[in-house]
Amino acid sequence: MRCLLTRLLPGAALGLFALTAAMAAEDIVLRGMGSFHVGGRIVEVSGKPVRTIVRQPGGPPSQLDPNGQYMVEQMYVQYFLPKNRKGKLPLLMWHGGGLTGVTYESTPDGREGWLNIFIRKGWDVYNSDAVERGRSGFASPDVWPSEPTFLPYADPFERFRIGDGAGSWNADPAKRRVLPENQFPVEAYENYMKQTVPRWLTTDDAIIAAYVALVDKICPCVILVHSQGGAFGFKVAEQRPDKIKAIVAIESATAGIVGKAAALKNTPILMVFGDYVDQHPRWAAFKKIDLEYAAAVRAGGGKVDVIYLPELGIKGNSHMMMQDKNNSQIAEVIQKWLAGKGLSN
Amino acid sequence: MRCLLTRLLPGAALGLFALTAAMAAEDIVLRGMGSFHVGGRIVEVSGKPVRTIVRQPGGPPSQLDPNGQYMVEQMYVQYFLPKNRKGKLPLLMWHGGGLTGVTYESTPDGREGWLNIFIRKGWDVYNSDAVERGRSGFASPDVWPSEPTFLPYADPFERFRIGDGAGSWNADPAKRRVLPENQFPVEAYENYMKQTVPRWLTTDDAIIAAYVALVDKICPCVILVHSQGGAFGFKVAEQRPDKIKAIVAIESATAGIVGKAAALKNTPILMVFGDYVDQHPRWAAFKKIDLEYAAAVRAGGGKVDVIYLPELGIKGNSHMMMQDKNNSQIAEVIQKWLAGKGLSN
Repeated sequence: MRCLLTRLLPGAALGLFALTAAMAAEDIVLRGMGSFHVGGRIVEVSGKPVRTIVRQPGGPPSQLDPNGQYMVEQMYVQYFLPKNRKGKLPLLMWHGGGLTGVTYESTPDGREGWLNIFIRKGWDVYNSDAVERGRSGFASPDVWPSEPTFLPYADPFERFRIGDGAGSWNADPAKRRVLPENQFPVEAYENYMKQTVPRWLTTDDAIIAAYVALVDKICPCVILVHSQGGAFGFKVAEQRPDKIKAIVAIESATAGIVGKAAALKNTPILMVFGDYVDQHPRWAAFKKIDLEYAAAVRAGGGKVDVIYLPELGIKGNSHMMMQDKNNSQIAEVIQKWLAGKGLSN
Repeated sequence: MRCLLTRLLPGAALGLFALTAAMAAEDIVLRGMGSFHVGGRIVEVSGKPVRTIVRQPGGPPSQLDPNGQYMVEQMYVQYFLPKNRKGKLPLLMWHGGGLTGVTYESTPDGREGWLNIFIRKGWDVYNSDAVERGRSGFASPDVWPSEPTFLPYADPFERFRIGDGAGSWNADPAKRRVLPENQFPVEAYENYMKQTVPRWLTTDDAIIAAYVALVDKICPCVILVHSQGGAFGFKVAEQRPDKIKAIVAIESATAGIVGKAAALKNTPILMVFGDYVDQHPRWAAFKKIDLEYAAAVRAGGGKVDVIYLPELGIKGNSHMMMQDKNNSQIAEVIQKWLAGKGLSN
């Protein structure tokens, strides 16, 4: 084994962004805020052998008996209820893969994220961490027989249309090949990577079950979904079409099940895509899947609007557009659509 | 392998607590709120063999190359800045082992936790998830060569002085042996267990490094620490005595390093203990360690106040007193002490 450890720059200058940005705007007046967990189950692990593990590197081996009852597959949700409520329904924000609800909080460079922005627009916002991520916790290998996966440092830079695809990352910031007019705060990329968390590839059913539990608790509602969260969002909506009154899908990474799309005939859908989607095969492929799903919804009598931001003259948006420098501009595009559907005063 | 899966009760009745409690109180007016990560490092994993893993149970084996750069050991912090600021310094809340900042949010039965309560008292509150827990994420076995540990369902009930020690848990709620005058919302124990997360036993140095990074970013400040968070808090304070202006230690589970305690001569300390501490050997042992540390601080010229809640006539408090039914009463005891030290208007 060989590990090269590189200390990061202290980043003190970046860190100050968070406070200055937050205090620049008007007060946020809440009639309530809090958190809760939904879903989950008690699992009883039994019949497993007692294992010998080393609890501390270099320390003595010790025994671990994994048998017993555990709480697993619950989901964490934090909510903020503005006093000046204008959204007619709760707005649920569901993040993408390898991330948590932090996606919607302060941006990596410390500006306000969509959580604050939509609270300020008068929405009751419920921001969650999908099962097995963040404050939802995760289960042991005795419950989930697969390993978590870890996101390499340069991966989102190349894959999320911050850099210009494979090979665009370089350890030297000056040599990174950033997309023209890129809106992502690349100078704070390190902070973005701090937001990432491991994920499993085998927990989709548990994640969907917890989202359904959330919908059953809080909705009728609007859901705003991003990337992998879209794959979950559309499938949950197919199961609870009467409770999900609108879907805003930000570059949904796969969508619902085409054969069930007609369930959404009464649920207006907005799909939003950033810049350079067609130039990057991975995103072109996701877009194709989304549009095929949109066609199926329409064929079932539903309504889907698709916005390509560059067609509105909004250029350079990455896959993480809720953190991009023009994130408030995009939030306003979404707000206008929601208001047009009669969902906000 | 044999796994018995037990579906939980939907718990809809419990779930509603969160909303009703939050809306009963006065508005929360914030001049800002947001989140950030501190600390962390980029680790380069190299020379590791490519492993064959099964990504989906029953699926085909696939290759996993763990080599490359990863962001690890960062810490998540969420902050709320009340408009009517009365606390003279930021108040940092550090949770205990197997938990996250959720400890201080809504209680398992949906009342307001100390996060809301101290915001309402006018404190700028910074609530964090220790490294490797919650929204801080965790590192791969290639970086941390030990396994996480998972908390069995009944364990905190018996260990945290909710029930009367070992053997007090029973699957049948009617047969659980709860301590007399117990203040923990036992009817919501299931929700409490949903707050728990796995933890490692080998990450103390990384956790302390991230807390030091937080202190360097935000302080001078007051820290409020609980259980394992106390072990970290006192050690961090020994490293940054000029930046930590007071410590409120809720049943600290071990304290600092006795030989370094004199560093805290100018940092007033409050230690708070709940009920039944002396009757339960584990807590009596922690109390003994804490008091020995307090003696060392005093010998170095420092000041430590110790409050045993039962001596104030406040009975039945568990180790999770910030979630107990009388949590606002205990918060007021702490607030009075802080005001007495000139730290709050």
